[in-house]
Amino acid sequence: MNDPIKVTLPDGSVREVPRGTTPFAIAHSISPRLADAVVVARIRTAAGNTTDGAEEQTDDAHRGAQTEESMYAEAASAERIVDLAEPLNEDVHLWLLKEQDPESLRVVRHSAAHVMATAITELYPDVKLGHGPATDSGFFYDILREKPFTPEDLAAIEIKMAEVVARNEPFRHEYISHEEALTGYEQQGDFMKMHFISKFTKPGDNVSFYRNGEFVDFCRGPHVPSTGRVKAFKVMSIAGAYWLGDEKNPQLQRIYGTAFYTQKELDAHFKHLEEIKARDHRVLGKQLDLFSIQELAGSGLIFWHPKGAIIRKTMEDWMREECLRRGYDLVVTPHVMRRELWKISGHEGFYGDNMYAPMELDDAEYRLKPMNCPGHILIYKNSPKSYRDLPVRYAELGNVYRYERSGTMHGLLRVRGFTQDDAHIFCTPQQIEDEVVACVEFAEEVLHKFGFTEFKVELSTWDKNDAKSYVGAPEDWELAVNGLKTALGRKGIPYKEIPGEAAFYGPKIDVKLVDVLGRLWQLSTVQFDFNLPKRFELEYTGEDGEKHQPVMVHRALFGSVERFFGVLIEHYAGAFPLWLAPIQIGLVPISEKHTEYAKKVKAELEAIGLRVELDARNEQMKAKIRELALQKIPFVLIMGDKESEASAVSVRTRGKGDEGSVPLADFIARCKTLLADKSATL
Amino acid sequence: MNDPIKVTLPDGSVREVPRGTTPFAIAHSISPRLADAVVVARIRTAAGNTTDGAEEQTDDAHRGAQTEESMYAEAASAERIVDLAEPLNEDVHLWLLKEQDPESLRVVRHSAAHVMATAITELYPDVKLGHGPATDSGFFYDILREKPFTPEDLAAIEIKMAEVVARNEPFRHEYISHEEALTGYEQQGDFMKMHFISKFTKPGDNVSFYRNGEFVDFCRGPHVPSTGRVKAFKVMSIAGAYWLGDEKNPQLQRIYGTAFYTQKELDAHFKHLEEIKARDHRVLGKQLDLFSIQELAGSGLIFWHPKGAIIRKTMEDWMREECLRRGYDLVVTPHVMRRELWKISGHEGFYGDNMYAPMELDDAEYRLKPMNCPGHILIYKNSPKSYRDLPVRYAELGNVYRYERSGTMHGLLRVRGFTQDDAHIFCTPQQIEDEVVACVEFAEEVLHKFGFTEFKVELSTWDKNDAKSYVGAPEDWELAVNGLKTALGRKGIPYKEIPGEAAFYGPKIDVKLVDVLGRLWQLSTVQFDFNLPKRFELEYTGEDGEKHQPVMVHRALFGSVERFFGVLIEHYAGAFPLWLAPIQIGLVPISEKHTEYAKKVKAELEAIGLRVELDARNEQMKAKIRELALQKIPFVLIMGDKESEASAVSVRTRGKGDEGSVPLADFIARCKTLLADKSATL
Repeated sequence: MNDPIKVTLPDGSVREVPRGTTPFAIAHSISPRLADAVVVARIRTAAGNTTDGAEEQTDDAHRGAQTEESMYAEAASAERIVDLAEPLNEDVHLWLLKEQDPESLRVVRHSAAHVMATAITELYPDVKLGHGPATDSGFFYDILREKPFTPEDLAAIEIKMAEVVARNEPFRHEYISHEEALTGYEQQGDFMKMHFISKFTKPGDNVSFYRNGEFVDFCRGPHVPSTGRVKAFKVMSIAGAYWLGDEKNPQLQRIYGTAFYTQKELDAHFKHLEEIKARDHRVLGKQLDLFSIQELAGSGLIFWHPKGAIIRKTMEDWMREECLRRGYDLVVTPHVMRRELWKISGHEGFYGDNMYAPMELDDAEYRLKPMNCPGHILIYKNSPKSYRDLPVRYAELGNVYRYERSGTMHGLLRVRGFTQDDAHIFCTPQQIEDEVVACVEFAEEVLHKFGFTEFKVELSTWDKNDAKSYVGAPEDWELAVNGLKTALGRKGIPYKEIPGEAAFYGPKIDVKLVDVLGRLWQLSTVQFDFNLPKRFELEYTGEDGEKHQPVMVHRALFGSVERFFGVLIEHYAGAFPLWLAPIQIGLVPISEKHTEYAKKVKAELEAIGLRVELDARNEQMKAKIRELALQKIPFVLIMGDKESEASAVSVRTRGKGDEGSVPLADFIARCKTLLADKSATL
Repeated sequence: MNDPIKVTLPDGSVREVPRGTTPFAIAHSISPRLADAVVVARIRTAAGNTTDGAEEQTDDAHRGAQTEESMYAEAASAERIVDLAEPLNEDVHLWLLKEQDPESLRVVRHSAAHVMATAITELYPDVKLGHGPATDSGFFYDILREKPFTPEDLAAIEIKMAEVVARNEPFRHEYISHEEALTGYEQQGDFMKMHFISKFTKPGDNVSFYRNGEFVDFCRGPHVPSTGRVKAFKVMSIAGAYWLGDEKNPQLQRIYGTAFYTQKELDAHFKHLEEIKARDHRVLGKQLDLFSIQELAGSGLIFWHPKGAIIRKTMEDWMREECLRRGYDLVVTPHVMRRELWKISGHEGFYGDNMYAPMELDDAEYRLKPMNCPGHILIYKNSPKSYRDLPVRYAELGNVYRYERSGTMHGLLRVRGFTQDDAHIFCTPQQIEDEVVACVEFAEEVLHKFGFTEFKVELSTWDKNDAKSYVGAPEDWELAVNGLKTALGRKGIPYKEIPGEAAFYGPKIDVKLVDVLGRLWQLSTVQFDFNLPKRFELEYTGEDGEKHQPVMVHRALFGSVERFFGVLIEHYAGAFPLWLAPIQIGLVPISEKHTEYAKKVKAELEAIGLRVELDARNEQMKAKIRELALQKIPFVLIMGDKESEASAVSVRTRGKGDEGSVPLADFIARCKTLLADKSATL
């Protein structure tokens, strides 16, 4: 039992150390400076088994649909993050993680959550604690307390946290028996911790706790070495949360905070949040009168106001022309179709919960379409197809309706009714590669045209070892996946392959754009489908005179027109490029006697298709300019005596300010160029 | 009782004649030639009462939704058509109707129905007769007979009818008592005639019958003087019809025929029918691959195929641009909205039977929109409006869904889902006139642009004497109706006023276009609405600083994009003008060595936005030209050595034939002009 163990470091070197040596000791043996810099460690053991029975029970809140069960299963994976004080008891691969390693910050934030809980229990000893995980942008802790926390309470908590940090209490990992742990919490009447213990550990387990000073919490860890390592933090906000997410349970107060390594990073984070807030498409949508959601009409349903609808028209017109130019055919299909059709397509079975309820009509039932595919398939099937007809590419700006749960809607980004720029390509297996290249090129064109320069590509493929869970023959999968890879390769596009992430009916390419704030948005998708051609018995006559089944590709580039518009609003902060701006030019005559000239200018600008607003009211010039600026109009032109006489306009450019008088003809030429280029800048 | 009566003729002259004098006798007293020419008479009595208790029970089949009750009521109107042999027993205004009078032909056809029934009962004495009215294009008789009539039977009936006509039997009007009539039919076991007698007459009535030769039928008349006046007729077809239209009742055989004054007119009618058949949009829609209806997806739902969808796009693009040019704002509203909204709008109560069934979603119910008005109203209400904002004009190509009964759908002309080019104008009462002028001008532009030169305008107004049945103050109605009249007057547009035909919520203008076959199609409507502004409490701040209710105008110019497209297909017989044609140019290289040149031509044509199909297959030139001609492509260009060398094309113009070689540049210039003019001809 006292044999040394082998610790393999990232550079491949192997150290023999006594069993029970900690990562901290190993770091220190390499260099004391390293020991100071290290935050936490990652280990991989041969068996991949965990050495203790307790699991981190506190991390489900930000994981969407994951269940507690799946989290528990996850803990059995081969690699895990551990405290620097974790005794190593078997041969391991060891990574000593410093601040810059991506896993570290999450641990710091988890420790910050404990620091906050410490502060709260010291200030308010009557509280009970729910769970307190790190999240993608910080951490929270759920607190059971009858009295609501006030903003002053939050400030007090932040001050108390600073004390806890200053005390630099080491985080100590302790174990007690399952039974003892349960009994202890039972005596305190702590039903929440009792729930966690029962859920995540079993009789006979040694249950994992973390202590700092007087504060002890059931927790799988890991943590930073001591509270002093939580350097820059902030208590941010409070919200209600039901115990276990069930509204029949008691309501908890969820206190949010965040933590960084330095105050500078924390400040940058808040600046980023401000920027996000300032660009919120819901706020800008209202302020610029672009769209609304009318609760009287229903949740998640968008009303496009004139200024939003003109942008939508510009987007859609461009998309339709571009589809035609690229060899797509436009089609239009109905919004309701018989339930029978949705049964054949499989939507009824696999997607029914996401569809609006059926409507009875005469003897048939109808359902709103959640997708356009079956409609396009019926057109494909309407006449026999030969290999000479392929590829067939049907495109539609199709309005689809999907059921999203009450309360999950979010402006334009998560809605119940939206417009897909949907297309379906029916082709031979040999045509896959060219079609995918064309789709990816088209997706790039869409993103560039609308002002995005950076994007990331993911390729979701199948799990070869689980072929039975997928529709389509293995050779079809290989052909499709290779087609996608070759296509991306031909375009020189770097991508991340995610095996096992494909839908059961085919592999797909996702294109995620990066907006001006660096946020990723999933928009374009190119999705293979081996399923629907089979269900609908699609065919074409090959060169051999035999019937074959075509490959089907679903692809959407905006994805959802509504969502894309939401992203556009945030990306541009409502200051749209000239070609998209609802009002492109604002005209301000200095006084009434210049109105005639302003009308002449208006007519000339409108003649080249510009959308112009003339403010001929008898108001102060400055007030008019301010009002037009609030609408984020690209150009405001001011016209006085000088301009009238010289056939000129005084130009105020959004974001650039007063550019002085220029001949009207020059200004028109500038606009023409900006429009022709669909320029993102002015 | 033997006082003479006064007969007033159309020229205002008054004749005193003995009571009981017939219209025939009066005609004869004017001129024997007139007596020969007269078919039937129209009389108006002071009381407006009918003189007998029997009503024409046979005329409901072609009147759509009218009930038997409403027909009965109609018989009490002041004017009516009578036999020439009808004794005149009180002072009357008398019109002697000749063949050219529009009412005459209907009477001839009704008599022809009796001639056919005479022939049928002579040939097949076991039959029982249902009803046998005249229709807009002929007549029919419903026959109860177990054995189906064969085409040979129909031929035999036609021959027998000629005999009945040759016998020139006078139609005699006879009366027997209600009780006697019922008893007679009861003895014959004739449940159908018993039904009609009980339905349309009551105990004590004298019931009206018509006799010619041996044939007697319960009938209100009127008829021509004798069977010899039925000069040109044809037995046309047979169809099934349930007794009283109820499928639980016995099935009758409905035999259709038609009649005219001359064989020439009859021939012209059949030629017209052939033309209509050749233009049937359902047949052409399939032949030209424009659209389909997929029973798997549902009835009355249109799938626009690529070639139809490109025409639709052209129509919609034009419409959107034209709306913008005319000061409309585009909006987009959802396809489903909460039931609550439809209750407020009144659609749930007044229009619910025409709507698709509700869908439950969370705690709310949603319904597909049958109209776009409430959506536009919510946008109007979203922000306060001042008189300076008015008129507000919201336009949307809105997809609406309406329940039509199974079996009533008809291609694109009667559907369950369609796209309205819908707009709502919110304005002050003072703006009504200008807005209506603008709407009518816009409607004219739509019709002219799409190749219709003739149209008829109807103005439906209210019944002042029944003001309580209408929403809106009398002064509003006066203002609106006068606005409409003044607007039509300003445009110099002749119109027909139909008092009492307005909807309860406002007067309207209907524009009916006349197609190339002279058929009338109801498409554009400009409809006032005093109701919805009240229900939704719409308002604007007037110049006086007070709140006022705006006037609302609904207007649709295509009406339904689907229906308009159906009319277009029939109007053009599928041979669309260049700007609308799905494929505008077909290219046929004479041999393979001309394919390169053909591709160059294709590129040049596509560069000016033309849709071009190049048939480069290795097939016979003639076969290719024939195939392209079947698609009704405006121009087919043939290219051989001569054309390749001279940068020319040999032009075959649809409907004109071979126009020989012309320089490509000239042909392109020609196309540009045709496109710019949206020319209806080539």
